[in-house]
Amino acid sequence: MARPPFTPTIASLPKLVPFVGPEALERARGRPFVARLGANESVFGPSPKAVAAMREASGENWKYSDPENFELRAAIAAHHGIAIENVVVGEGIDGLLGLTCTLFLTPGAHVVTTDGAYPTFNFHVRAHGGTLNLIPMQDMREDVPRLIEAAKAKSARLLYVSNPNNPIGSWWSADDLKSFIGALPSETLLILDEAYVDTAPPGTAPPIDVANPQVVHYRTFSKAYGLAGARIGYAIGEKSVIEAFDKVRNHYGINRVGQIGALAALLDQEYLRNAVGSIASARDHIAAIASEHGLSSLPSGANFVAIDCGRDGAFAEGVLKGLLERDVFVRKPVAKGIDHCIRVSCGREKDLSFFANALSAAIEDARRLS
Amino acid sequence: MARPPFTPTIASLPKLVPFVGPEALERARGRPFVARLGANESVFGPSPKAVAAMREASGENWKYSDPENFELRAAIAAHHGIAIENVVVGEGIDGLLGLTCTLFLTPGAHVVTTDGAYPTFNFHVRAHGGTLNLIPMQDMREDVPRLIEAAKAKSARLLYVSNPNNPIGSWWSADDLKSFIGALPSETLLILDEAYVDTAPPGTAPPIDVANPQVVHYRTFSKAYGLAGARIGYAIGEKSVIEAFDKVRNHYGINRVGQIGALAALLDQEYLRNAVGSIASARDHIAAIASEHGLSSLPSGANFVAIDCGRDGAFAEGVLKGLLERDVFVRKPVAKGIDHCIRVSCGREKDLSFFANALSAAIEDARRLS
Repeated sequence: MARPPFTPTIASLPKLVPFVGPEALERARGRPFVARLGANESVFGPSPKAVAAMREASGENWKYSDPENFELRAAIAAHHGIAIENVVVGEGIDGLLGLTCTLFLTPGAHVVTTDGAYPTFNFHVRAHGGTLNLIPMQDMREDVPRLIEAAKAKSARLLYVSNPNNPIGSWWSADDLKSFIGALPSETLLILDEAYVDTAPPGTAPPIDVANPQVVHYRTFSKAYGLAGARIGYAIGEKSVIEAFDKVRNHYGINRVGQIGALAALLDQEYLRNAVGSIASARDHIAAIASEHGLSSLPSGANFVAIDCGRDGAFAEGVLKGLLERDVFVRKPVAKGIDHCIRVSCGREKDLSFFANALSAAIEDARRLS
Repeated sequence: MARPPFTPTIASLPKLVPFVGPEALERARGRPFVARLGANESVFGPSPKAVAAMREASGENWKYSDPENFELRAAIAAHHGIAIENVVVGEGIDGLLGLTCTLFLTPGAHVVTTDGAYPTFNFHVRAHGGTLNLIPMQDMREDVPRLIEAAKAKSARLLYVSNPNNPIGSWWSADDLKSFIGALPSETLLILDEAYVDTAPPGTAPPIDVANPQVVHYRTFSKAYGLAGARIGYAIGEKSVIEAFDKVRNHYGINRVGQIGALAALLDQEYLRNAVGSIASARDHIAAIASEHGLSSLPSGANFVAIDCGRDGAFAEGVLKGLLERDVFVRKPVAKGIDHCIRVSCGREKDLSFFANALSAAIEDARRLS
């Protein structure tokens, strides 16, 4: 019996995994991590009101959740001062990025993004047969002017910008973004990934203009809201773009408990402000730890900090390895130009103290090996 | 500002919604349903152990869940006596059906299914530009021999069979399925949707042969396991087919609470047996209610019963309308040849008593109007 043929795009794709999860590492190591600081989750957790809502919803999980995600979308719309038809909810930003590719990419279509930016976006582009054009960071920041040039030169269908970006945490101001948006080539959709914007300084998020069909904003409950496990993200855009998601999305794909938890989290903005405060303190703490170890760190508007390990990528890889061996889960960029960094997610005092202790030994290891 | 162009497939698609949810109907009506018997959920709920596990997991929902879904897949593999690499977990069978289309369909590829079978599958086929070939039911059952003929004639890439099927609940025996599988054209993948097989008579599910790359089995925790809100389904198949899902799936798409709940539900087979018993009793009860109203019902291996309203589709539509007006959420098939039925999901005594009372009045309404 032969296997029925995959599409040419699928047949030509190598095996790809966007991110190996900490659980897979733990299985390989045979023991759990003590500090989980590698996936940019929020160890501060979601609002206790969200936890209570999810606990209560667990007993009602025999019901599908509303496929129109009406209550959550209405609350999101109210939060942003837009209409419900400008909002679509998906299985995290990841899921929405995949759907965006389905809407706009045919095999061979050009896509522009930053080398070393979000690999899951690249994963979805490849799965749709898109051609990736990778532009290096400039001064540890996404080089948006050059990204736009490349989009023009390639007649790119999609242009990916994250603000703040992952894995560095650097950002552009709202004013800069506004002028970039004005310079978009006419056949290019800007995917503006704002997963980390809730923790960025005021004046980072450009105003949402739902009249503009060239920009879609992506937001999530996985980061500052502390609900990574819930898998709830949303996209905001012009009505005809957002409605098109209904042609391709898994209408019953959003889990009931997560949807209810996200709504409760959204409605508790006071908790969010506190969490954002805790995250900002943790960023300072991580920067201080780096400094204490003779390393510099990069300014971050996100819920993580990139630490410059001060030598080359191999050395940073050594530091990473030393941390993993000492039960600290962190990750590092692999793209050229940023691979001398490790990326540490914000954590509680106890997580960061554990990290600080492990870091000393990890640096020694790396020095010995290099 | 113009909208960047959608792909030709998307641009040509009309607005489509696979199923309007009960919540949308409730919003339009302005009041909730009393009996929720339209979405083939299990009002008997999941195992209390699953509920307890989900409640507990709610507090840990700040963590992404394992993107390899290792523990759940290992338990599923053990349950079916297969290897973990033969199992992929997705956001319900719906999500996995969409991914299957991504793996195998290029625009224009032929797909064969039954007219009136699962609309969500058709939805995904259309989103991928596939050409649907719809074969009518024969004697209120999927006409699998004719489906196979059509797949041969059209060199279909995908052939969809549900066993038991939705929306009738009829089924083929495992032996029949085995011989159908042997007759598949060599370039066709059989999508064997077994969402309802847990409630079917013994001898309905064909043996799983993971050496055969032409058959993928789809199972779910949404039906007998009572976890529709969790959005956890899985597909079983030959290793190279299952591995290909890793090229296209949303690796972090599975919510943490749902995944943990599904695992607990799977491990409580005693509860499942009890639930299946309750569902079987409810089927008998629905059949008895039909009979008391002078209507016949169709034998069902699923967690619902199709009631033949005894006249044409318009009459059944009238009965449906009368039920909805009386706060009973049910659905009906719309395809020719089966549209004289309404479909009633299994419920508790109180749900079905409420349904029985509403049915009398709904039939009277429909008679008056016809």
